[in-house]
Amino acid sequence: MANISLHKPVPASDVSAWDLDTDIVIIGFGAAGACAAIEAAEAGSKVALFERNSGSGGASGLSGGEIYIGGNGGTEVQRDAGFEDRTEDFAAYLKMAGGPCVDEAKCDLYAEKSLDHFAWLKAQGVPYRGNYLAGKHIEPTDDSTLIWSGSEAAAPFCDQAKPAPRGHVIQHMGWGGGRPLVDILEAKVRQLGVDVHVDARALGLVQDGEHIVGAVFKIDGKETFVRASKGVILATGGFVMNEEMRRKYCPETFKINDPIGDQDDGTGINLGVGAGGDAIHMDQFFTTCPWTIPEPQASGVFVNVQGQRFINEDCYHGRVSRTMVDQSGGKVYLLLDVAHFSEPAEFARMTIAGTGETWAEVEAELDMTQGTLAATMHFYNKHAKEGRDPLFDKRQPVLTPLDQGPFVALELNFQTSYFSFFTLGGLKTSINGEVLDRTGAPISGLFAAGRCTSGLPAWGHGYSSGMSLADCTFFGRQAGRMAAG
Amino acid sequence: MANISLHKPVPASDVSAWDLDTDIVIIGFGAAGACAAIEAAEAGSKVALFERNSGSGGASGLSGGEIYIGGNGGTEVQRDAGFEDRTEDFAAYLKMAGGPCVDEAKCDLYAEKSLDHFAWLKAQGVPYRGNYLAGKHIEPTDDSTLIWSGSEAAAPFCDQAKPAPRGHVIQHMGWGGGRPLVDILEAKVRQLGVDVHVDARALGLVQDGEHIVGAVFKIDGKETFVRASKGVILATGGFVMNEEMRRKYCPETFKINDPIGDQDDGTGINLGVGAGGDAIHMDQFFTTCPWTIPEPQASGVFVNVQGQRFINEDCYHGRVSRTMVDQSGGKVYLLLDVAHFSEPAEFARMTIAGTGETWAEVEAELDMTQGTLAATMHFYNKHAKEGRDPLFDKRQPVLTPLDQGPFVALELNFQTSYFSFFTLGGLKTSINGEVLDRTGAPISGLFAAGRCTSGLPAWGHGYSSGMSLADCTFFGRQAGRMAAG
Repeated sequence: MANISLHKPVPASDVSAWDLDTDIVIIGFGAAGACAAIEAAEAGSKVALFERNSGSGGASGLSGGEIYIGGNGGTEVQRDAGFEDRTEDFAAYLKMAGGPCVDEAKCDLYAEKSLDHFAWLKAQGVPYRGNYLAGKHIEPTDDSTLIWSGSEAAAPFCDQAKPAPRGHVIQHMGWGGGRPLVDILEAKVRQLGVDVHVDARALGLVQDGEHIVGAVFKIDGKETFVRASKGVILATGGFVMNEEMRRKYCPETFKINDPIGDQDDGTGINLGVGAGGDAIHMDQFFTTCPWTIPEPQASGVFVNVQGQRFINEDCYHGRVSRTMVDQSGGKVYLLLDVAHFSEPAEFARMTIAGTGETWAEVEAELDMTQGTLAATMHFYNKHAKEGRDPLFDKRQPVLTPLDQGPFVALELNFQTSYFSFFTLGGLKTSINGEVLDRTGAPISGLFAAGRCTSGLPAWGHGYSSGMSLADCTFFGRQAGRMAAG
Repeated sequence: MANISLHKPVPASDVSAWDLDTDIVIIGFGAAGACAAIEAAEAGSKVALFERNSGSGGASGLSGGEIYIGGNGGTEVQRDAGFEDRTEDFAAYLKMAGGPCVDEAKCDLYAEKSLDHFAWLKAQGVPYRGNYLAGKHIEPTDDSTLIWSGSEAAAPFCDQAKPAPRGHVIQHMGWGGGRPLVDILEAKVRQLGVDVHVDARALGLVQDGEHIVGAVFKIDGKETFVRASKGVILATGGFVMNEEMRRKYCPETFKINDPIGDQDDGTGINLGVGAGGDAIHMDQFFTTCPWTIPEPQASGVFVNVQGQRFINEDCYHGRVSRTMVDQSGGKVYLLLDVAHFSEPAEFARMTIAGTGETWAEVEAELDMTQGTLAATMHFYNKHAKEGRDPLFDKRQPVLTPLDQGPFVALELNFQTSYFSFFTLGGLKTSINGEVLDRTGAPISGLFAAGRCTSGLPAWGHGYSSGMSLADCTFFGRQAGRMAAG
């Protein structure tokens, strides 16, 4: 009997009989797996797709269905709204967003091919209303298409890449567009005759010499050996649901408490590393707290427990949130005046920690030393009235004085407020989705896409909404085509 | 011919002939390798030690020869100086120093056994003068023994673990005690008849089934196969000298420019991971800038480019430096008054960026907005006169007003000032030095110690001087004994 493990491929010689035979095995039926399956099947390969749950979705199905798209002058939606989006600006933004973890080749390729990818998504049947929704939104609450979904218009990004909104959201009323997005992709997958197996959990890969030639699944309680003559594509998501992996590779996430994911337990990363793959930037994670809801709160100012500001609050809510979690003291405060305050979103679990007719009163109510928060706000307001933020370069129109009381300080507590998060580190892959070994060489027959890889959204401080789905769908397609050969 | 790689063990069946035969192979002749060799040889094993350079040393040989020791009431040096050091306090400090990356079992074991370890070091011939040197020192400039070498007396550490100085420095005039420390250990290694090979570069491990049974070296231009019936101990150091690995696993280090190490190119980590080992906390690094030289500068105040303080400057210089590198803007300023300023150490490459009769003048000379740096110093001085630091809880005696001009701001620029650094991430090992696979099970015949592992100094923000050598020497011994069986 073969000794089956996530951490080491089974030698093909140990496989007594194959239960299924196909060209390409895909593990995981989120957006990455679906897109890989579509491309591989359209290229003429026989494809079998295995999903641990009883249906498609994965973390993609829990998302907003927003995809980060631009370049080449802009999509028709961008152009209709008056935004030209040059490829150079798009690539420059993607690279800044990747920070120290950037994969420049992936950024360049995606910036160049993103418009084609948008056309492809529409050709699969993904609907877009085609309009632009101005303002600061996490997701549209209606069925609008184009939103500002990152830090494009904020410093330092706007100084190095001409800003444009790039979040393209599937036509869908309200949040949760990820589910219909995956449904559309699934319909295409099934229409193409992909052999879909649900309730099928991956147990291991099978290797013949240096080549990955199949995988083993638990289906109906039985170990099922599947031969894949052209290889295996891993599309299983990140490891946010695996506490042991988080402890070893991404322990900062224990500061916060709301992992978002599906069965994202690192299965694909473990399979890939076990086959000789390289897991990189494993410490990186996205986090956000929905502090920009209701929208006027986006004009608020954040201070840490020292009463200091720490970022230009007009950048992406996730970049602000990730920087919050860097602050010492376990919490930060969102400061608002009466004009910008209304009841915060209940699920945010932000609490009113202090109020006052003056900022000095708020400071006192928070038990902060005299001359901290109040001095910060005095300085902020003085310059905001002049239209500038000399400390962090926050820009108008989000930059606005908060000087007409009463005032409020909302507490965002890392342990008790809602800080959703998911992991960004994963397998190192080529631009074609090949899993690379630690020397940088492709592992024969092994491919990966989505959050089991380190891709476009490589750096927690640079994430923008739509980047992960862009990465999943585009590089899922790349992997599917490459595997089909 | 065997296909030899750092990244995958050679199957024993591919080895046509063994060139050498021993019980235990040790790779790397720094402190970890030397201590492993001594214990293994004393336990009766035949030991062969291989070093890539022409002599012993490694990064240990470049160090100060300081070892972090305490607990069980304190060493005689601590006790003579009036410091009781309970095991609970020592363990608590080690755990805080490990932060989110802590290995609690290693902390507990070392806290309990540290005094025995000190006795063992002395028994090997390591000399200690036995005196206590008060004050803030990176290393003694004379041959003193005991110094404060961490953040023990600073918040928040001092509130959770009773402070004691724990840095025990070999008797040696001036800096550089690591070299004589390794010399003493080497003498013992040779006296025990360990078979030492220098100019011997590790190329790969050899595996028989699930067991590591040897290693391959390049010696005199030839591949040399060495059988190790009891296993192989990796003691090759971190990966600070490997830019490609830093890019993949620890890219924040590219903010700074002064790697310290010897041949620390990740060889042991690659060998271990290739054999199924688990590399953890690979993003962690130590860094320091010698800003506390001359000593009065230790009373300075740091601000970032926003003019904000960011830490209690009385904690360990490396913790302060690591936090500096977290600040945006690429530089920070060390603020001093005339009473505490004298020419900084030349090798620190700190420059005078601004001076003035008042802090407002300094602020203006740095082109900072009015009411930033000067307001920070006004607030700081006001409370320092009252003996407190409400923002960061810096304590007396380091806490002192800086209100008698003239004043100076020294620039510490991440790219041009001296920020030495080395990596802290590495193989996950048991308290006995066994290399663990990704399920947490020991890999038969494979052991590791020192900076190719993640050990006591696991977290860059919590490092204290002497922790890495404590880890290398103590867990090197553990690995040597365990391998000897």
